[in-house]
Amino acid sequence: MNLSAAQARRRFSTATVARLATVGPDAGPHLVPITFALLGESRVVSAIDHKPKRTTALRRLANIAANPRVCLLVDHYEDDWSALWWARADGLARVIGPGVEPELRAAALDALAGRYGQYAQRRPAGELIVVEIEGWSGWAASG
Amino acid sequence: MNLSAAQARRRFSTATVARLATVGPDAGPHLVPITFALLGESRVVSAIDHKPKRTTALRRLANIAANPRVCLLVDHYEDDWSALWWARADGLARVIGPGVEPELRAAALDALAGRYGQYAQRRPAGELIVVEIEGWSGWAASG
Repeated sequence: MNLSAAQARRRFSTATVARLATVGPDAGPHLVPITFALLGESRVVSAIDHKPKRTTALRRLANIAANPRVCLLVDHYEDDWSALWWARADGLARVIGPGVEPELRAAALDALAGRYGQYAQRRPAGELIVVEIEGWSGWAASG
Repeated sequence: MNLSAAQARRRFSTATVARLATVGPDAGPHLVPITFALLGESRVVSAIDHKPKRTTALRRLANIAANPRVCLLVDHYEDDWSALWWARADGLARVIGPGVEPELRAAALDALAGRYGQYAQRRPAGELIVVEIEGWSGWAASG
Protein backbone atom coordinates (compact mmCIF):
# COMPACT_ATOMS: atom_id res chain seq x y z
CA MET A 1 0.00 0.00 0.00
CA ASN A 2 1.17 3.53 -0.68
CA LEU A 3 2.04 5.51 2.42
CA SER A 4 0.73 9.00 3.08
CA ALA A 5 3.30 11.79 3.32
CA ALA A 6 2.97 11.75 7.12
CA GLN A 7 3.41 7.98 7.27
CA ALA A 8 6.42 8.10 4.98
CA ARG A 9 8.04 10.87 6.98
CA ARG A 10 7.48 9.01 10.25
CA ARG A 11 9.02 5.79 8.92
CA PHE A 12 11.89 7.72 7.39
CA SER A 13 12.65 9.30 10.76
CA THR A 14 13.09 5.90 12.45
CA ALA A 15 16.07 4.91 10.30
CA THR A 16 19.74 5.38 11.14
CA VAL A 17 20.94 5.37 7.56
CA ALA A 18 19.51 6.76 4.31
CA ARG A 19 20.80 6.84 0.75
CA LEU A 20 21.38 10.14 -0.98
CA ALA A 21 21.07 10.31 -4.75
CA THR A 22 22.48 13.28 -6.63
CA VAL A 23 22.88 13.79 -10.37
CA GLY A 24 26.25 14.44 -11.95
CA PRO A 25 27.22 16.70 -14.85
CA ASP A 26 27.00 13.68 -17.18
CA ALA A 27 23.31 13.26 -16.18
CA GLY A 28 24.29 10.07 -14.36
CA PRO A 29 23.01 9.38 -10.85
CA HIS A 30 25.39 9.11 -7.87
CA LEU A 31 24.56 7.28 -4.63
CA VAL A 32 26.04 7.30 -1.14
CA PRO A 33 24.76 6.17 2.25
CA ILE A 34 24.38 8.97 4.77
CA THR A 35 23.63 9.49 8.41
CA PHE A 36 21.02 12.17 8.90
CA ALA A 37 18.60 14.00 11.15
CA LEU A 38 15.27 15.66 10.52
CA LEU A 39 14.93 19.31 11.42
CA GLY A 40 11.33 20.41 11.76
CA GLU A 41 8.75 19.08 9.34
CA SER A 42 10.52 19.30 6.05
CA ARG A 43 14.28 19.51 6.38
CA VAL A 44 16.88 16.74 6.39
CA VAL A 45 20.47 17.48 7.39
CA SER A 46 23.62 15.42 6.97
CA ALA A 47 27.26 16.10 7.81
CA ILE A 48 30.50 15.44 5.98
CA ASP A 49 33.50 15.05 8.21
CA HIS A 50 35.32 11.84 7.41
CA LYS A 51 38.59 12.50 5.68
CA PRO A 52 38.82 8.97 4.24
CA LYS A 53 35.63 9.64 2.30
CA ARG A 54 36.80 12.97 0.99
CA THR A 55 36.79 12.09 -2.72
CA THR A 56 33.25 10.78 -2.61
CA ALA A 57 32.18 13.73 -0.49
CA LEU A 58 33.52 16.20 -3.01
CA ARG A 59 31.63 14.58 -5.86
CA ARG A 60 28.42 14.76 -3.88
CA LEU A 61 28.99 18.44 -3.06
CA ALA A 62 29.89 19.32 -6.65
CA ASN A 63 26.77 17.56 -7.91
CA ILE A 64 24.56 19.49 -5.49
CA ALA A 65 26.20 22.78 -6.44
CA ALA A 66 25.38 22.15 -10.11
CA ASN A 67 21.97 20.52 -9.61
CA PRO A 68 20.25 20.78 -6.22
CA ARG A 69 17.65 18.09 -6.92
CA VAL A 70 18.21 15.11 -4.64
CA CYS A 71 16.36 11.99 -3.57
CA LEU A 72 16.70 10.25 -0.19
CA LEU A 73 15.61 6.68 0.50
CA VAL A 74 15.15 4.60 3.61
CA ASP A 75 14.12 0.98 3.23
CA HIS A 76 13.46 -2.08 5.31
CA TYR A 77 14.17 -5.58 4.03
CA GLU A 78 13.27 -8.94 5.54
CA ASP A 79 13.14 -12.39 4.05
CA ASP A 80 9.44 -12.20 4.85
CA TRP A 81 8.33 -9.87 2.09
CA SER A 82 5.10 -9.00 3.90
CA ALA A 83 7.31 -6.85 6.17
CA LEU A 84 8.94 -4.79 3.40
CA TRP A 85 8.60 -1.02 3.36
CA TRP A 86 10.41 2.03 2.08
CA ALA A 87 10.13 5.77 2.43
CA ARG A 88 11.42 8.39 0.03
CA ALA A 89 12.03 12.13 0.29
CA ASP A 90 12.48 14.33 -2.77
CA GLY A 91 13.87 17.79 -2.35
CA LEU A 92 16.38 20.51 -3.03
CA ALA A 93 19.78 20.42 -1.35
CA ARG A 94 22.35 23.05 -0.53
CA VAL A 95 25.74 22.89 1.14
CA ILE A 96 26.58 24.98 4.18
CA GLY A 97 30.26 25.46 4.89
CA PRO A 98 31.79 26.06 8.32
CA GLY A 99 30.88 29.49 9.68
CA VAL A 100 27.88 29.95 7.41
CA GLU A 101 24.33 30.18 8.80
CA PRO A 102 25.52 29.51 12.36
CA GLU A 103 22.04 29.10 13.85
CA LEU A 104 21.00 26.49 11.33
CA ARG A 105 24.38 24.80 11.71
CA ALA A 106 24.03 24.61 15.49
CA ALA A 107 20.52 23.19 15.23
CA ALA A 108 21.65 20.62 12.67
CA LEU A 109 24.62 19.53 14.77
CA ASP A 110 22.43 19.27 17.87
CA ALA A 111 19.97 17.08 15.98
CA LEU A 112 22.77 14.87 14.60
CA ALA A 113 24.43 14.60 18.02
CA GLY A 114 21.09 13.55 19.48
CA ARG A 115 20.90 10.62 17.08
CA TYR A 116 24.52 9.46 16.80
CA GLY A 117 26.84 9.04 19.77
CA GLN A 118 29.85 9.59 17.53
CA TYR A 119 28.63 13.09 16.69
CA ALA A 120 27.89 13.82 20.35
CA GLN A 121 31.51 13.01 21.20
CA ARG A 122 32.94 14.97 18.30
CA ARG A 123 30.92 17.51 16.37
CA PRO A 124 31.36 17.39 12.60
CA ALA A 125 33.47 20.37 11.54
CA GLY A 126 33.02 20.22 7.78
CA GLU A 127 30.23 20.94 5.33
CA LEU A 128 26.61 20.24 6.07
CA ILE A 129 24.08 19.17 3.46
CA VAL A 130 20.66 20.68 4.07
CA VAL A 131 17.74 19.30 2.05
CA GLU A 132 14.42 21.11 1.86
CA ILE A 133 11.98 18.25 1.34
CA GLU A 134 9.28 18.92 -1.23
CA GLY A 135 7.62 15.52 -1.12
CA TRP A 136 7.46 12.43 1.07
CA SER A 137 6.29 9.13 -0.37
CA GLY A 138 6.54 5.48 0.48
CA TRP A 139 5.19 1.99 0.31
CA ALA A 140 4.61 -0.86 2.72
CA ALA A 141 3.67 -4.44 1.92
CA SER A 142 1.28 -4.42 4.87
CA GLY A 143 -0.04 -1.96 7.40
CA MET B 1 39.68 2.54 2.87
CA ASN B 2 38.59 2.46 -0.74
CA LEU B 3 37.68 -0.98 -2.03
CA SER B 4 39.03 -2.42 -5.24
CA ALA B 5 36.53 -3.22 -7.98
CA ALA B 6 36.76 -6.93 -7.10
CA GLN B 7 36.23 -6.23 -3.41
CA ALA B 8 33.29 -3.96 -4.10
CA ARG B 9 31.68 -6.49 -6.40
CA ARG B 10 32.11 -9.28 -3.85
CA ARG B 11 30.55 -7.25 -1.04
CA PHE B 12 27.74 -6.11 -3.33
CA SER B 13 26.96 -9.73 -4.15
CA THR B 14 26.39 -10.63 -0.49
CA ALA B 15 23.45 -8.26 -0.06
CA THR B 16 19.77 -9.10 -0.44
CA VAL B 17 18.66 -5.57 -1.24
CA ALA B 18 20.19 -2.74 -3.27
CA ARG B 19 19.00 0.73 -4.15
CA LEU B 20 18.53 1.71 -7.78
CA ALA B 21 18.93 5.35 -8.77
CA THR B 22 17.63 6.56 -12.11
CA VAL B 23 17.34 10.10 -13.44
CA GLY B 24 14.00 11.58 -14.50
CA PRO B 25 13.16 13.93 -17.37
CA ASP B 26 13.38 16.86 -14.93
CA ALA B 27 17.02 15.88 -14.20
CA GLY B 28 15.95 14.84 -10.71
CA PRO B 29 17.12 11.53 -9.25
CA HIS B 30 14.67 8.73 -8.38
CA LEU B 31 15.37 5.97 -5.87
CA VAL B 32 13.82 2.59 -5.17
CA PRO B 33 15.00 -0.49 -3.28
CA ILE B 34 15.37 -3.58 -5.46
CA THR B 35 16.03 -7.26 -5.14
CA PHE B 36 18.68 -8.37 -7.59
CA ALA B 37 21.08 -11.03 -8.82
CA LEU B 38 24.46 -10.85 -10.47
CA LEU B 39 24.85 -12.52 -13.85
CA GLY B 40 28.46 -13.17 -14.74
CA GLU B 41 31.07 -10.57 -13.91
CA SER B 42 29.40 -7.37 -14.90
CA ARG B 43 25.64 -7.67 -15.12
CA VAL B 44 22.98 -7.01 -12.49
CA VAL B 45 19.37 -8.08 -13.07
CA SER B 46 16.19 -7.16 -11.25
CA ALA B 47 12.54 -8.05 -11.81
CA ILE B 48 9.33 -6.06 -11.64
CA ASP B 49 6.28 -8.08 -10.81
CA HIS B 50 4.42 -6.57 -7.91
CA LYS B 51 1.22 -4.97 -9.00
CA PRO B 52 0.97 -2.77 -5.89
CA LYS B 53 4.21 -1.09 -6.91
CA ARG B 54 3.13 -0.53 -10.48
CA THR B 55 3.21 3.27 -10.44
CA THR B 56 6.72 3.39 -9.05
CA ALA B 57 7.81 0.67 -11.44
CA LEU B 58 6.57 2.58 -14.44
CA ARG B 59 8.48 5.70 -13.44
CA ARG B 60 11.66 3.66 -13.10
CA LEU B 61 11.13 2.07 -16.52
CA ALA B 62 10.34 5.40 -18.19
CA ASN B 63 13.45 6.95 -16.67
CA ILE B 64 15.65 4.13 -17.97
CA ALA B 65 14.10 4.35 -21.43
CA ALA B 66 14.99 8.06 -21.60
CA ASN B 67 18.35 7.87 -19.81
CA PRO B 68 20.00 4.47 -19.28
CA ARG B 69 22.56 5.69 -16.74
CA VAL B 70 21.89 4.13 -13.35
CA CYS B 71 23.64 3.72 -10.02
CA LEU B 72 23.19 0.83 -7.59
CA LEU B 73 24.19 0.92 -3.94
CA VAL B 74 24.53 -1.67 -1.21
CA ASP B 75 25.49 -0.51 2.26
CA HIS B 76 26.05 -1.89 5.72
CA TYR B 77 25.29 0.14 8.83
CA GLU B 78 26.08 -0.61 12.45
CA ASP B 79 26.19 1.60 15.51
CA ASP B 80 29.87 0.70 15.59
CA TRP B 81 31.10 2.86 12.74
CA SER B 82 34.29 0.83 12.36
CA ALA B 83 32.07 -1.80 10.71
CA LEU B 84 30.55 0.48 8.06
CA TRP B 85 30.97 -0.32 4.39
CA TRP B 86 29.25 0.30 1.08
CA ALA B 87 29.60 -0.88 -2.49
CA ARG B 88 28.42 0.90 -5.61
CA ALA B 89 27.87 -0.16 -9.19
CA ASP B 90 27.54 2.35 -12.02
CA GLY B 91 26.22 1.20 -15.36
CA LEU B 92 23.77 1.34 -18.22
CA ALA B 93 20.33 -0.21 -17.85
CA ARG B 94 17.79 -1.53 -20.28
CA VAL B 95 14.36 -3.06 -19.86
CA ILE B 96 13.48 -6.47 -21.26
CA GLY B 97 9.80 -7.20 -21.64
CA PRO B 98 8.21 -10.65 -21.52
CA GLY B 99 9.13 -12.75 -24.54
CA VAL B 100 12.22 -10.70 -25.41
CA GLU B 101 15.74 -12.18 -25.25
CA PRO B 102 14.43 -15.49 -23.84
CA GLU B 103 17.87 -16.91 -23.03
CA LEU B 104 18.92 -13.89 -21.01
CA ARG B 105 15.51 -13.83 -19.37
CA ALA B 106 15.76 -17.48 -18.35
CA ALA B 107 19.24 -16.98 -16.92
CA ALA B 108 18.13 -13.90 -15.00
CA LEU B 109 15.08 -15.65 -13.56
CA ASP B 110 17.19 -18.65 -12.57
CA ALA B 111 19.63 -16.38 -10.78
CA LEU B 112 16.85 -14.50 -9.00
CA ALA B 113 15.08 -17.73 -8.02
CA GLY B 114 18.36 -19.00 -6.60
CA ARG B 115 18.57 -16.04 -4.27
CA TYR B 116 14.93 -15.43 -3.30
CA GLY B 117 12.52 -18.18 -2.28
CA GLN B 118 9.57 -16.07 -3.39
CA TYR B 119 10.89 -16.04 -6.95
CA ALA B 120 11.56 -19.78 -6.84
CA GLN B 121 7.90 -20.34 -5.96
CA ARG B 122 6.57 -17.91 -8.54
CA ARG B 123 8.70 -16.62 -11.39
CA PRO B 124 8.35 -12.92 -12.12
CA ALA B 125 6.33 -12.50 -15.30
CA GLY B 126 6.88 -8.81 -15.98
CA GLU B 127 9.72 -6.64 -17.16
CA LEU B 128 13.32 -7.28 -16.22
CA ILE B 129 15.89 -4.55 -15.69
CA VAL B 130 19.34 -5.55 -16.94
CA VAL B 131 22.26 -3.34 -15.96
CA GLU B 132 25.63 -3.61 -17.68
CA ILE B 133 28.02 -2.53 -14.94
CA GLU B 134 30.81 -0.23 -16.10
CA GLY B 135 32.39 0.38 -12.71
CA TRP B 136 32.44 -1.08 -9.21
CA SER B 137 33.57 1.04 -6.29
CA GLY B 138 33.24 1.01 -2.55
CA TRP B 139 34.51 1.92 0.85
CA ALA B 140 34.98 0.19 4.18
CA ALA B 141 35.86 1.73 7.53
CA SER B 142 38.18 -1.20 8.21
CA GLY B 143 39.47 -4.24 6.39
